[in-house]
Amino acid sequence: MRILLRHPGVELVCATSRQYAGQRVADLFPRFRHVPGADLVFTDSDAAEIAATGAEAAFLALPHGVSASYGRALVEAGLRVIDLSADFRLNSPAVYEEFYGKPHPDPELMQEAVYGMPEWHREEIKKSRIIGSPGCYPTSILLPLIPLLRAGLVLPQDIVVNSGSGVSGAGRKADVQYHFCECNESMRAYGVPRHRHLSEIEQELSLAAGEEVVITFTPHLMPVNTGIETTTVAKLAPGVTADDLTACYEKAYANAPFVRLLGAGKPADTKNVTRTNFVDIGWAVDTRTHRAVLMSAEDNVIKGAGGQGVHAFNIMFGFDETEGLWLI
Amino acid sequence: MRILLRHPGVELVCATSRQYAGQRVADLFPRFRHVPGADLVFTDSDAAEIAATGAEAAFLALPHGVSASYGRALVEAGLRVIDLSADFRLNSPAVYEEFYGKPHPDPELMQEAVYGMPEWHREEIKKSRIIGSPGCYPTSILLPLIPLLRAGLVLPQDIVVNSGSGVSGAGRKADVQYHFCECNESMRAYGVPRHRHLSEIEQELSLAAGEEVVITFTPHLMPVNTGIETTTVAKLAPGVTADDLTACYEKAYANAPFVRLLGAGKPADTKNVTRTNFVDIGWAVDTRTHRAVLMSAEDNVIKGAGGQGVHAFNIMFGFDETEGLWLI
Amino acid sequence: MRILLRHPGVELVCATSRQYAGQRVADLFPRFRHVPGADLVFTDSDAAEIAATGAEAAFLALPHGVSASYGRALVEAGLRVIDLSADFRLNSPAVYEEFYGKPHPDPELMQEAVYGMPEWHREEIKKSRIIGSPGCYPTSILLPLIPLLRAGLVLPQDIVVNSGSGVSGAGRKADVQYHFCECNESMRAYGVPRHRHLSEIEQELSLAAGEEVVITFTPHLMPVNTGIETTTVAKLAPGVTADDLTACYEKAYANAPFVRLLGAGKPADTKNVTRTNFVDIGWAVDTRTHRAVLMSAEDNVIKGAGGQGVHAFNIMFGFDETEGLWLI
Amino acid sequence: MRILLRHPGVELVCATSRQYAGQRVADLFPRFRHVPGADLVFTDSDAAEIAATGAEAAFLALPHGVSASYGRALVEAGLRVIDLSADFRLNSPAVYEEFYGKPHPDPELMQEAVYGMPEWHREEIKKSRIIGSPGCYPTSILLPLIPLLRAGLVLPQDIVVNSGSGVSGAGRKADVQYHFCECNESMRAYGVPRHRHLSEIEQELSLAAGEEVVITFTPHLMPVNTGIETTTVAKLAPGVTADDLTACYEKAYANAPFVRLLGAGKPADTKNVTRTNFVDIGWAVDTRTHRAVLMSAEDNVIKGAGGQGVHAFNIMFGFDETEGLWLI
Repeated sequence: MRILLRHPGVELVCATSRQYAGQRVADLFPRFRHVPGADLVFTDSDAAEIAATGAEAAFLALPHGVSASYGRALVEAGLRVIDLSADFRLNSPAVYEEFYGKPHPDPELMQEAVYGMPEWHREEIKKSRIIGSPGCYPTSILLPLIPLLRAGLVLPQDIVVNSGSGVSGAGRKADVQYHFCECNESMRAYGVPRHRHLSEIEQELSLAAGEEVVITFTPHLMPVNTGIETTTVAKLAPGVTADDLTACYEKAYANAPFVRLLGAGKPADTKNVTRTNFVDIGWAVDTRTHRAVLMSAEDNVIKGAGGQGVHAFNIMFGFDETEGLWLI
Repeated sequence: MRILLRHPGVELVCATSRQYAGQRVADLFPRFRHVPGADLVFTDSDAAEIAATGAEAAFLALPHGVSASYGRALVEAGLRVIDLSADFRLNSPAVYEEFYGKPHPDPELMQEAVYGMPEWHREEIKKSRIIGSPGCYPTSILLPLIPLLRAGLVLPQDIVVNSGSGVSGAGRKADVQYHFCECNESMRAYGVPRHRHLSEIEQELSLAAGEEVVITFTPHLMPVNTGIETTTVAKLAPGVTADDLTACYEKAYANAPFVRLLGAGKPADTKNVTRTNFVDIGWAVDTRTHRAVLMSAEDNVIKGAGGQGVHAFNIMFGFDETEGLWLI
Repeated sequence: MRILLRHPGVELVCATSRQYAGQRVADLFPRFRHVPGADLVFTDSDAAEIAATGAEAAFLALPHGVSASYGRALVEAGLRVIDLSADFRLNSPAVYEEFYGKPHPDPELMQEAVYGMPEWHREEIKKSRIIGSPGCYPTSILLPLIPLLRAGLVLPQDIVVNSGSGVSGAGRKADVQYHFCECNESMRAYGVPRHRHLSEIEQELSLAAGEEVVITFTPHLMPVNTGIETTTVAKLAPGVTADDLTACYEKAYANAPFVRLLGAGKPADTKNVTRTNFVDIGWAVDTRTHRAVLMSAEDNVIKGAGGQGVHAFNIMFGFDETEGLWLI
Repeated sequence: MRILLRHPGVELVCATSRQYAGQRVADLFPRFRHVPGADLVFTDSDAAEIAATGAEAAFLALPHGVSASYGRALVEAGLRVIDLSADFRLNSPAVYEEFYGKPHPDPELMQEAVYGMPEWHREEIKKSRIIGSPGCYPTSILLPLIPLLRAGLVLPQDIVVNSGSGVSGAGRKADVQYHFCECNESMRAYGVPRHRHLSEIEQELSLAAGEEVVITFTPHLMPVNTGIETTTVAKLAPGVTADDLTACYEKAYANAPFVRLLGAGKPADTKNVTRTNFVDIGWAVDTRTHRAVLMSAEDNVIKGAGGQGVHAFNIMFGFDETEGLWLI
């Protein structure tokens, strides 16, 4: 909403919330008071009513399992849908069931949907009527790895990923584990050893490698509001150097406005990307073990969620793809 | 100093500082005002004067390269020395030179010194006149890995370690990169890909494995005052299960008062160990990749520095090894 | 509990919790694992059962309104009680009802109880069987003001107090307003203009001034775990200088081990008192307006709660009053 | 710079820095990489060279005492100047010397300059060639107080102000007192009892009250990156109620896009204004003492500095006054 309120090509005609229906957006989120457009009132989440507003696009920020039915109703009403849940990210109903614990409610639409990562699925996004916008961790993991796997510079076996995420990643809910005193001065792993995001990460890595990729991924909760830092370690193919990585990245992301290449030996820092749609990527070669160390940083709720969704929206609707996204 | 001031078997007779000579300890560190013993005045760092106080033990918290000469002078004056720098941790002068960039000034004393990790070098510590107290990162990495390597439960190849450390790890110095606004809401890797602590980590891992171990280690700076969280990923030997890890840990640390075993599937959280001498260890088995994920947390300046040093001191001087260390 | 577990004169025989009955203390608070004594199991909160343990003293950390009945049952069973709620702090049932919204359930015991501030009620504490331990804000406000009011150095009219408290002051509960992202990077007033603590603050200030004192007090929530910083502004009596304040404080607190006088022109800093039983007090004279600016800092859950309670306990039971309280 | 890079009416032609001349803006501030316009290179701070770029306006962010000479040179070269230092905020050379410790280098230009607070000096700003943009604390103090003083609703005597500021207020410099570990988990007053900002605060309050106003002001450093929270306590004129304050504010700020009135009994929270140009104002009446408690929050580096400067710039150059300032 922060992005859409300031997007020159967007008129926000409807905001829904089952919990807050009837309240003004700016009352619930006082940061938005006085901002043009923020006097909108939340309405109930009813697909027919949404369609009746004349909206051409809908962004869904719903729990997985819930998004699917709204997605179906809205695309059938003629809207193009950008879904931020996990419901439309996977191609395989079986993998969905394995990781999300129940059968997908609409496998047909799920398989029609496009994985909304602009850097690697731009052409499909253009034509799609429904987008599964990538998860926050996956975005920070896929962007550094995909080009190297596609080019065969790193081996698809033995990839080990560690990430830290800000507390906003857990959502805004009353739960003692996200109480200030439980998170401040704390760093801890969670979701070990099989976080749900592995399903989409491995789907896209396998696509890039041309073979099945299975990785070890350990997410951590860190005491910041927003931001994901990911450190990925992978074995290099024989003879590969840091310069090869540099050349590969520069080619892969020459036209990617929101991927910032920091260079060899340069770690990424979450503080440089918070509240922006950028992902920063640095890399190093550990010559003692012939491994690549990839370091990426993004804002989990912008590049890892809402910003990436608007990026896809820009592509779908023919806007300049950076429209509304030069957030600094 | 926080620990020694409250240790029932210690009388603090001397505190030295080149920078603060002449100032009262409690003026420089207002936290210590009114605490019995804290009206001590910093004196210059002169080994002969230290010896003249009649002290029986000295704790050195000096930069590497500087500690060596004080260590020599003090042991020759009959004190037993616990050195917190890197100068007495390594066995090999060649490795020291490789990682610290110049020849060791006193290779003989260096080779006499004992690596002061109580859990694995208790007997040597007892008899030693000089201790190289382990580094903060190494402590959090070695304690989870050593028993598994010794038991052959994990393979010594392909160990990947990620750590996050609080800002106190960088010391208390005026440097813009540790300014509040540069660290708050920030997470970043540094020292990639060859942090100096690798030298002692690999020395002790190789000792445990009975063969040379080379690992990939990526340290990060995280926005907390103190605390290290380490996530170690290693391949399991064929057939090894989470229960095997549990049994191995329970046996290895049955008599280790400061190692707390959290159990399988339980991540460690820095907030539970800050300001204590405990290290918490949890573990999980990633059955998809047959890897162990080891999660450890400690306070970098207590278990990772001063507390571990006092632990060794207790052993050297015949105190109960927990004396003064039930910090909560 | 952190203090009692390490207090040499205390054996902890019972810990009660309606919510956590049956759980081990160290499981709920992992920080306490391995600490001698922390394998206690929470039992239900039953006064008869508590008495049956043979305990001689009880610390109550219950909501106001609930404490009163436990206090009555326990003193009648022969225990001496240190109550950390508001139920036994006030002398006046009418004031209690005004600020806490209902009649006090046991006005007789309330009026027997002693306000447990050791610096100003030591002799009454010695003989008391029930103590109302002071609130966190009141402690930080009363200690700087009482000596000046008693000496007539500041005027009792026109006292304005601002305080900031760490989030632990709100307790450990699932409430979205204490979510990490709602508190981090946030500073906000609350409880304006009539915080409940005003009742005990004004009771004790009036006692010191010998006349009725009514103040303006604005508490704030600040993004730290523990700590209260209080800035008190008061008009000076004619002719009073900073030196007069200094002399008054030095005399008043010459024998107060936990009151640390910083001196004129020296602000107090919460970071020097966190996790200790100290309160730091600095002062300045604004000669342009002839006002005193008093700056105090304490740990809200130690000096402002548990530590102050143990201090009173030490006095009640004849221990050295600093026993178990040299926390650093 | 963050604002100017995205302002549709601005072309940034020059950025100067004595310290960083020759470096790219985006290299020093990695947050700006890839943002259109941020490939600018810092040049040395030379007024003639600045003028030669053809710039029509200059923003000065220099230490007080240094700004004055640049201000003179630039206005003489025909630029209109928005100065963020203290050099052009005061009307009285004597007050400047009293608070800043030396005579003003250019009293004539100082007296010509306009205090750049758009809400109260809009018409003068329009015509001015040099603006002294208000300080961060003063902005948060003046905006709540001016309308009440002008309307006679509060008394000009006995105003007591407490503020907390984020660490960015101290600038980005290597100084151990702003080290992460010195600020995190810390709250402390400083600059007591006579902060330099008092000079401009009292100048503007006196103007509003029509008589000399002298206040007591205590600033604090709080552990957030940006944000100022100010709590102002003032005696109400006889008979004044909370509704009177509400009516006064609504009238005074009916046309002020960046002043958000929260209403009676509503505290301001810094987290709602960080990175925006808004100031949030809430108020309460303490009927027990007949005082007003005013609570305001702003971002110290936006509304309290750069944003307010751009606001004045918009007015000077005939842009819509909100242009480039709907920052959320």
